[in-house]
Amino acid sequence: MKLYDLELSGNCYKVRLFAALARIPLDIVPVDFLSGAHKKSPLIELNPWGELPILVDQDLVLRDSQAILVYLAGQYGGEAWLPKDPAHMAGVVQWLSVASNEVQNGPAAARLVDKFGYVIDKPDTLKRSGRILPLIDAHLATNKWLTLGRPTIADCAVFPYVALAPEGAVSLTPYTHIHAWIERMKALPYFAPMPGV
Amino acid sequence: MKLYDLELSGNCYKVRLFAALARIPLDIVPVDFLSGAHKKSPLIELNPWGELPILVDQDLVLRDSQAILVYLAGQYGGEAWLPKDPAHMAGVVQWLSVASNEVQNGPAAARLVDKFGYVIDKPDTLKRSGRILPLIDAHLATNKWLTLGRPTIADCAVFPYVALAPEGAVSLTPYTHIHAWIERMKALPYFAPMPGV
Repeated sequence: MKLYDLELSGNCYKVRLFAALARIPLDIVPVDFLSGAHKKSPLIELNPWGELPILVDQDLVLRDSQAILVYLAGQYGGEAWLPKDPAHMAGVVQWLSVASNEVQNGPAAARLVDKFGYVIDKPDTLKRSGRILPLIDAHLATNKWLTLGRPTIADCAVFPYVALAPEGAVSLTPYTHIHAWIERMKALPYFAPMPGV
Repeated sequence: MKLYDLELSGNCYKVRLFAALARIPLDIVPVDFLSGAHKKSPLIELNPWGELPILVDQDLVLRDSQAILVYLAGQYGGEAWLPKDPAHMAGVVQWLSVASNEVQNGPAAARLVDKFGYVIDKPDTLKRSGRILPLIDAHLATNKWLTLGRPTIADCAVFPYVALAPEGAVSLTPYTHIHAWIERMKALPYFAPMPGV
C-alpha cells in the first residue's frame, strides 16, 4: 500500500500518524513537491485535485486525508478508531469536517503563508484560527479526546495542524486544554512525530 | 427527531433533502436566525459552534451537516446511501470533505456575501469556486453520480451549494455536466426543492 507523501505536509502527517498508531504498514513514496510533481503526470491522473496525500491500495486510489483515514481505519485499523455505530461514527465525522474546513482554513492556512510563502489572506487565517481554537479548547476542557472518550481518527485528523499552529505564528499558549491534549497524543504508544511537532 | 432548521441555509437543506429522498421523518423546528437565536441559549448549548443545522434524536445531539447525513444514513437510510465497505465509504467521505471545505468556502461563501451581506472576501470565494466547479464538472463528465454510480449522501452534501451557486453570482453555464447532474438530482423520487433550487 503506497502513500504518496510530503514530509512537511500536515495532511500527509495525518495519515502517517494514524498508520503508526494503528500499526498499519505503509510504503511511503516521497513526492518532489517543490518541482510540482503532484500537479503533473502520473500523479495528476491519480488525483486530479493536484494535492497530497494520495493512497493507493491495489486498485483503490484515494485522495483527501480524511477519506484515507476512514479507509485505513475501516479496512485495517478496527472499530476502536472508527466505530460502526452510526451515532458514534457521526461523532467522529463532526471532527473530520472541522479538520477539513475550520482547521485547514485557519491554522493550516496561516502556516502555508509563513512557512511556504503561499499567497493567502493571512489576517483571515488568523481570524479563523481565533474562532476555532477556543472552541476546540473548550471542548477539551471536559473531554480527554475529541470524541468517544478515546483516541480515534478524529484526533489524528485534527491534531497535525493544531500542533503545527505556531509555525503559522498562531500561538497555542492561551489554550491549556489543547496543550494537554497534544501531550496526551504524544504519549500514545507508537506515536510518530514530524518536523515541527 | 428534531432538525433545528433555517429554510434558506444550504447546510440545513442538505439534511432536509436527504431525509426527503430516504423517507426519514423529521420534525422541522424553524430557528429565528435573523435575531441570532442560534447563538443564544438554549441552542448555543446544543451547538457551541453557533451554527445550523442541529439534529436532536433522543439523547443524541449532532452539529455539522455532513455528520448528520452520516448518522441519518447509518441509522435510518440504509446501505444504499452510505455503504459499510471501507473503500466505498471512503469514496463518499472524499465528497463530504469537498462539501465541508471547497464548496463551503467557494460557492456557498459567495452566496453568503451576495444574499446575506456577510463580510467575506468575495474575490477569494470566486477564485475558490473557479477551482472546484471545473473539477466537479470534469468528474461528472464520466460519472452520473459523485461516487458508486448511484445517488448517495455525497450527492446530498455537494448538491445544495452547487445548485445555489448562481445566487452568489457564480454562473453554472460553463458546467454542462454539473447542469445534467442537477437535473438528475431533481428527477429523483421524493426530491425536495428549496427556494433558489
